[in-house]
Parts: sequence; C-alpha cells; structure tokens
Amino acid sequence: MNISKFVTPEIIFGCGSLSQVGESALRLGASKVFLVSDAGVINAGWVDKALFYLKEAGLACETFSALTTNPKDFEVDEGTRRYLASGCDALVAVGGGSPTDVAKAIALLATNGGTLRDYEGINKIVHPLPPMVIVPSTAGAGSEVSQFTIVVDTVRKLKMSIISKSLIPDIAIVDPELLQTKDSLLAAATGLDALTHGIESYVSLAATPLTDIHALKAIELISRNLRRAVADRQDMEANTNMAMASLTAGMAFSNAILGATHAMTHQVDGLIDQHHGETNASILPHVMEFNLDTSPGRFREIALAFGEDVSGLDAAAGATRSIAAVRRLIRDIGLEKGLGQLGLQKEFIPLLSRNTLKDACLVTNPRSATYEDIVAIFHRAM
Amino acid sequence: MNISKFVTPEIIFGCGSLSQVGESALRLGASKVFLVSDAGVINAGWVDKALFYLKEAGLACETFSALTTNPKDFEVDEGTRRYLASGCDALVAVGGGSPTDVAKAIALLATNGGTLRDYEGINKIVHPLPPMVIVPSTAGAGSEVSQFTIVVDTVRKLKMSIISKSLIPDIAIVDPELLQTKDSLLAAATGLDALTHGIESYVSLAATPLTDIHALKAIELISRNLRRAVADRQDMEANTNMAMASLTAGMAFSNAILGATHAMTHQVDGLIDQHHGETNASILPHVMEFNLDTSPGRFREIALAFGEDVSGLDAAAGATRSIAAVRRLIRDIGLEKGLGQLGLQKEFIPLLSRNTLKDACLVTNPRSATYEDIVAIFHRAM
Ligand SMILES: [Fe+2]
Ligand SMILES: [Fe+2]
Repeated sequence: MNISKFVTPEIIFGCGSLSQVGESALRLGASKVFLVSDAGVINAGWVDKALFYLKEAGLACETFSALTTNPKDFEVDEGTRRYLASGCDALVAVGGGSPTDVAKAIALLATNGGTLRDYEGINKIVHPLPPMVIVPSTAGAGSEVSQFTIVVDTVRKLKMSIISKSLIPDIAIVDPELLQTKDSLLAAATGLDALTHGIESYVSLAATPLTDIHALKAIELISRNLRRAVADRQDMEANTNMAMASLTAGMAFSNAILGATHAMTHQVDGLIDQHHGETNASILPHVMEFNLDTSPGRFREIALAFGEDVSGLDAAAGATRSIAAVRRLIRDIGLEKGLGQLGLQKEFIPLLSRNTLKDACLVTNPRSATYEDIVAIFHRAM
Repeated sequence: MNISKFVTPEIIFGCGSLSQVGESALRLGASKVFLVSDAGVINAGWVDKALFYLKEAGLACETFSALTTNPKDFEVDEGTRRYLASGCDALVAVGGGSPTDVAKAIALLATNGGTLRDYEGINKIVHPLPPMVIVPSTAGAGSEVSQFTIVVDTVRKLKMSIISKSLIPDIAIVDPELLQTKDSLLAAATGLDALTHGIESYVSLAATPLTDIHALKAIELISRNLRRAVADRQDMEANTNMAMASLTAGMAFSNAILGATHAMTHQVDGLIDQHHGETNASILPHVMEFNLDTSPGRFREIALAFGEDVSGLDAAAGATRSIAAVRRLIRDIGLEKGLGQLGLQKEFIPLLSRNTLKDACLVTNPRSATYEDIVAIFHRAM
C-alpha cells in the first residue's frame, strides 16, 4: 500500500492580487486581523497597501513586525502575547519566509499553548489554528503553501522544523509586484532556496506523482528566469515566473518534504544567521553528489528540466549534468561561496552534524547518511 | 490586473487508499454518513468495503443508490429528502461522475434549499455545504476535485452546469484499485472525458500557469496509458496513471473551466442519455478544428504532450498534429462514432445549438461561437 497525501491552500495568483487580502480575510470569518510583517516590507509600502484593503473590507488591524531573518523563538513568544492581548481572530502575513513562519508559529501557540519546542517534528498539533492569509514578498520560501514553520531555538542554536497539515494557511495570495522592492542578493538567495526545494522534493523518498509535477515545473522555471530576475529587479516576466516557481516548489516540498541540504542548513542558519538561501547554495551541490547514485534517473530529469542536452548519455552521465547546471546557476547569480566565507568555523562541524541527524528533513533524503557522511559533506562545503 | 484562483480538495492517492474513508469522514466531524453510490459499484463490492471502514471509524451510515448515468434532477430531489430525513451530517460518494455529482447536488440542496435550477451557472451558492468525501470509481469525470456538479434538467432535457467553490469536496480519495471492476467501454469513455477536460482547460480563456501544468500532465498520461487501460483492465500501472490523469485534468478544468465540446455534450447528454465520454469523442475533434487558429501554439503543445514529433513544423502545422493524435486515440479505443450512431436525430440540432449558447462552459472557449457555428459543428459531428 503506497498512499500519498497532497494538500494546498486556496491560491490567488497575479499582479495586483494583494487587493484581494481584505475580501479573503473577511471570507474566513475575520473581524480583527493580526498583520505580521517586517521593517523592509513596511518601508517598501506594502503593509500600508495591505492595511488599506483590510480596512476597506471593514476589518480592524494590529501590526506586528518585531522579528528578524531566521526568526527566533522569543520573537514568536512576544508575538503570541501581543496576538492574545489584541483580540484578533485571524492572521495575515505580508513578507518573506520570516514573517510567514512567525505568523504560523503565533497561530500555533495562540490556540495550542505551550512552547514551540513541544511541537518540533511531525504532526504534533492538536487544536485547529486561527484563519491565516499569507502574502509572500519574496520568491523562495514557499511557506505560503507549506505545512512547515521553521523557527530558531536560541538556546540550542538550531532551527526547529515544525511540520503539520494544521500549518497550511487557508489562502495564499501571490502577487509578483511585491518582488520588485527586494534587492538582487535577496532575489538570488530566495530563488536558490526555491531551487533547493524543487530538487530536494523531487528526489525525496516521499515524492509522489503530484509532487513531481510541481517540483520539475519549479526547476524549469528557475533555470530560465532566476538569472534575469537577479539582473533586473523590474523584469516583471521574470518576477512572475519566479513567483510561480516558488509556489510550485512549495506545493512540492510541503507534500514530499525535503532532504539533507535542508537538514544541514537548518543547523547552520541557527548558528551563523546568514540568509537560508546562501547556506543552501553552499551545501546543495555537495548533497546532490552524495545522493547521485541512488536515483540517477531522477537527477537526469533535473538536468533535462534545466534544458541540458542529455541525449546519447546514459542515466549516470545525464545525472551528473544536473550538478553542473546547478553549479553554473549558483556562480552566475553570485552565490558561489563556501560556508567558511559565510562565517562558519570548522570546530562547529561535529555539533552541527549531530544535530543534522535529528532533523526531520533528513528522513526523506534518498540516501541514508551517517554522522561521518554529514561531517564529510560539511567539510567539502566549507 | 490578471488574477487567477486555484483551489483543490485535500487529495489522498494510491492503491488501498479506500481504507482512509472512515478516518477522513471522522476528521471532518461526521457522526452519520450519507453514502451515495450506484448499483454497479455496489455489485463490485466497493460499497461494502467503504461501509466497513466507515463503521470501523465509529460512524453510522445510510446508503443511497437510486440514480442513473447522467443523473437526473428528480433523483437529486429524492436523495435530498432521504438525506434530510436520515439525520446524516456528512456525505461520501463512492462511484463515477454520477454518484459524485448527485452527492454534491444533495449537499447543495440540503443546506441551501430551493431547487437545482436556482443555482445553475456560476457562484450562486450562499450557505456552506456539509462535509464531503469523494472516492471515484472511474478515471474520467474529475468531479472528486472540481467545483462543478452537472445534473440533467428532465423538463428542459439538458444538463445544468452548477459551478461554485462550495462544490469542491473536502477530501478526494483516489484509489486506482476501484478501476479494475469497470469494463473496457467505460474505461474508454471516461478516459476520453478526462482527455477532453485536459484539452479544453488547456486552451480555455481562463487557463492559468497552474492549470496548464495539470492539463498538460493529464494529456501526456492519457496518450500513454489509455490504450493499455482499455486493452487490459487489470493493468494496474495503466490504471494508476489514468487515475492520476483524471485527477490532474480535474484540477485543471475545475479552475480553468471548459469549452465548446462540453457546452455541446451537456445538451446532447440531456437528450439521448449516452455516456458523456462517448458524446465527447464524437464532438471533440471538430471543436479542436474550430478552435485551432486561435491558439496554434497551445495546440502544438498538446501535440507534443501526445509525443508527436513536431520538430521543423511551424506552430500551425504542429497544431494540426494534435487533432490527428486525438483522432487516432479515439479510433484505437473504439469510440470513433458519429452522434447519429449514438442515437441523435438531426432535427434536434437547432434546439441543442440554442441551448449550447446558454451553457456556462461556452464562455471560456477560445473562439467565440455563433448559433450558426454550433449548428455547423453538430452537423460535422453527426
Ligand atoms: Fe528552504
Ligand atoms: Fe466531462
């Protein structure tokens, strides 16, 4: 018996779709909305626009933005206190992965109580969450459609993965116009995160025909549009395609889970606080090499999605082309950096490797990895 | 502003997934389930299996199966009376498009009142429907994921299209094992219906990048598996791929709507009561010819999904290959019949054509059609 599940929120997609945020929250029964965002998104003016549409729909609003990249447990705790004191009955996030993951984590604690650590891992959430509408401002995290929230445990200095269908938002509003105000480095990093989602979910042990469709589409779109999106932040065709890529990659990994790259970056991000997409860029090619022999046919398909010519090559030879294509893309968008360059010191590798073995994302990696395997990959990625 | 919406139910897919029906209904808050099916599915033993799993989950059940192919308004009325008298609080359909559409229509009338004709068209439903779990027994209708229910108005002798997000079931359980007990003619007809969903939604005026992915995947799977599924009903690889094709085609057309083929077959099916897939087979190639010039690039992609070699051909020449491929498939699965052979008499064409112009599915056909256009297509399809 090989049964798979596939769940996504309602998706509203297109330039100008931010205008649907009021009607969407209203339709979910909201009367007062807790809007989670961050300083960058507020300065770009998107929160004011969202507040306009929410108020136009007759909704009261309270804004919360006391959070950082790689959001922290204590930020969620403060947000939860503010949410519970506010009388709000729904959450809206306008922002990248951080505000989205914080909104989800607040929603979780607001109705389930306790602390985030109680819910680490898979399917630990018991009570339903308040309604959530997510408006991503980056093309990468995929959190607007996923059953994940990833928050830094500042005591253990690692990212906790909390995975549950309850964390899937009710409505995802994907408006590519929001991407224009993010700079090229962020576009590169988030785009590379989306690529990692596509690749890891495609070779995941939990991949299904439905997740495969979405993963391959994401890889294809990223290979054709990420360079353009990084080079010109006003290229709305590239932005729209990257928004779609992030969305389909999110639909894939939410249902197929991820692999060793994310199991490793979750540890690194908790320690050195760099952008998650940059740490992915450092590690992904090395994990692909580690996994290659387990599913050459799948890696050959990834090479094909990149537009590589694999005709006349056998599966193994075709598969290696996928790694070459990923390395080329990483170089072209300026993310070819080792973990050392990002600030990681070698002496942390044993600790990071031990924690990697406990990460929920390692379970679906196509090749099982020992402590020694992970240590070796970390060293190659330095 | 070009905003699109994409909604699907939770999907549980795989051989043996029927076993999830009890847990699924329970999770939606059901205490007593109204199970809608038909005689063929009951005789094949699937309803007994479903009842076993529902009762194992502690649910009381009542079964309703007084319905026919191309379900009729009075069957829905009787089902609604039975549902309301039963004390049930959820619906489960186990069967093809007919039991599914009847379950949806009962759910609609049970909480919204009135008669089906009040809801004909798009977005007329006001009140939420009871929870619904759908287990399809054929690979074609796609109603398990769609926002459609299609019921014959026996007074006007036509099929009413009722389209609303409220009609999307909560959970679709797609178990390819159920396909084994359907005969080859039904496999051919339902598979051709799924193909028509894929093609019409791909060239629909309401197509979006997300519906495109699913439509093309459906076409590709059908072109490679339908012949095998018709030739050997125990070929579980072909059955599984056809189940996936029906599902992805359903995800596409539910969100992109359909076109002139369905606008026309809805009228024919209400009159001559043949299988909807057979009337689609008679009409689809002629509608493709009618639409070809409006979007040759899209029809060329359809040819590619069929595995046609279109290299060196321009868009127009590549596009015509899609029609040749569809005709070949229709012939190979034994559905190459004119509407006359299916029992339609020429004198009804004016009436059918007038009603076609009022069908909601005509709105998204890529080429606008006059009364004369529809009459001409009907004559070619005789
Ligand atoms: Fe990620
Ligand atoms: Fe149909």
